[in-house]
Amino acid sequence: MPIGIFDSGVGGLTAMKEIIRELPDENILYLGDTARVPYGARSPETVSIYSLQNAQFLMSKGIKLLVVACNTASSVSLELLMEKSPVPVVGVIEPGAKAAVARTELKRIAVIGTETTLNSKAYERVIKSIDSSIKVFGIACPLFVPLVEEGWLEGEVVTLTAEKYLSTLKNSNIDALVLGCTHYPMIKGIIADIIKVPLVDSAVETAKEVKRILRNNDMLCKRKASRRLSSNPPLEKGGRGDFRNKDKPLREFFVTDSPERFARAGRRFLGYEISNISKIDLDIL
Amino acid sequence: MPIGIFDSGVGGLTAMKEIIRELPDENILYLGDTARVPYGARSPETVSIYSLQNAQFLMSKGIKLLVVACNTASSVSLELLMEKSPVPVVGVIEPGAKAAVARTELKRIAVIGTETTLNSKAYERVIKSIDSSIKVFGIACPLFVPLVEEGWLEGEVVTLTAEKYLSTLKNSNIDALVLGCTHYPMIKGIIADIIKVPLVDSAVETAKEVKRILRNNDMLCKRKASRRLSSNPPLEKGGRGDFRNKDKPLREFFVTDSPERFARAGRRFLGYEISNISKIDLDIL
Repeated sequence: MPIGIFDSGVGGLTAMKEIIRELPDENILYLGDTARVPYGARSPETVSIYSLQNAQFLMSKGIKLLVVACNTASSVSLELLMEKSPVPVVGVIEPGAKAAVARTELKRIAVIGTETTLNSKAYERVIKSIDSSIKVFGIACPLFVPLVEEGWLEGEVVTLTAEKYLSTLKNSNIDALVLGCTHYPMIKGIIADIIKVPLVDSAVETAKEVKRILRNNDMLCKRKASRRLSSNPPLEKGGRGDFRNKDKPLREFFVTDSPERFARAGRRFLGYEISNISKIDLDIL
Repeated sequence: MPIGIFDSGVGGLTAMKEIIRELPDENILYLGDTARVPYGARSPETVSIYSLQNAQFLMSKGIKLLVVACNTASSVSLELLMEKSPVPVVGVIEPGAKAAVARTELKRIAVIGTETTLNSKAYERVIKSIDSSIKVFGIACPLFVPLVEEGWLEGEVVTLTAEKYLSTLKNSNIDALVLGCTHYPMIKGIIADIIKVPLVDSAVETAKEVKRILRNNDMLCKRKASRRLSSNPPLEKGGRGDFRNKDKPLREFFVTDSPERFARAGRRFLGYEISNISKIDLDIL
């Protein structure tokens, strides 16, 4: 059975990329709710309804684990999803928050994200539940998502925008910064140039958490084992590359708006062409 | 009966402001589909479904005329709405296009707007139906909407963004530029500084068209007439201002997401506090 990932749009592909890096053999279904992106300025109630619809769709396809790759959705609807879901649910907040706590020595962490994520104080709650003496600085950066979606990943506009948002952190004496939105890793070079502290990429941490849960529950894909047991002759050359062409893990994408637009943006996020994209309608669920 | 106006979000308030200026006595219902804003990068099919739902909601409230204040919705769904609607429907494209044609002498017009509006070629179609020899230059400016929503109406970021988008027009020899998105009048000073040609504000032209249609169909609000006929004693001082406090035209707002956020942004657009905002749910229609 595949892992199901949903995000408000293309941003969650940064999480998918990291999950593939950790778990290359897993089948993956990805749902991008592109007809209703962005979630970052919507109310918690609206985001929760959208999250439930997304989860229901992926459940209906039969998944073994659900990844909520959207920080906004994770921050306001994770508990609801855990309560309703028959399979394990992994959000991006807790892995990112834990990694930041492990990294800070000065006990001063910054979190950047969307307005709704920051207002929810979800990162702060997790961080303070581990160590209540840590000080958390939250900065909402609403223009980062449209800039990344527009493909303006370098140059004056994105640099000045980042400087404007991050200027309040200059004297904060932080020693860790959480990229609390899946779009932000696309401009992490610019952010790192301005704020010279280690960045925590929630997508990377979430992928590790997914691997840990699947391994602990003996739910990892057994592709490699079955290969060894199969009667196919061993590969002579090309090794894994050749093999994967014959027995490639499933990568299927669902979107709620134009597949063409998703394919264009997706190429930028994953670094290669994606196909196998279907348009679905969640409104009628 | 009131005039109904819908937009994807707060942008259409620029049109509402102009309609109030032309027709201060009219009752107005405004629907902002803030849970699904922005429409500018969504497919024509998705925008058409959303437009129909918006129109149906306003119709259910009993309106005498429907204004589609969103350029994206006007550009892809106006015909569909006209076909389904029992009352007159006014979009923002035709009034803006006609005004631009009246203004150009060099027969070279630029239109700036969202990706979906530009891809639809709706402005170009209307302009060329009036004078096929006119050359139209379309430029999509996707970051203008998030910049305006963020309230970054001046400064380096919005100026550099505008320069980047408009740089291709520098040698185009145009003599009219259509602000083909209801958000853009908020930054028209910056646009005018870069491109030194007359700007056509679709909101202004649409308000004139609404007045023309209501007058021609004898559908104007008879508030003033009934006042004169009423048995109330004439006002002594303050005149109209005092009177309007007693018999104020209706201004009612409906949104699909947080009323608080709409109120905040709405203040920027209309220039005064707005109240009377209700949250509604269109998904279940």
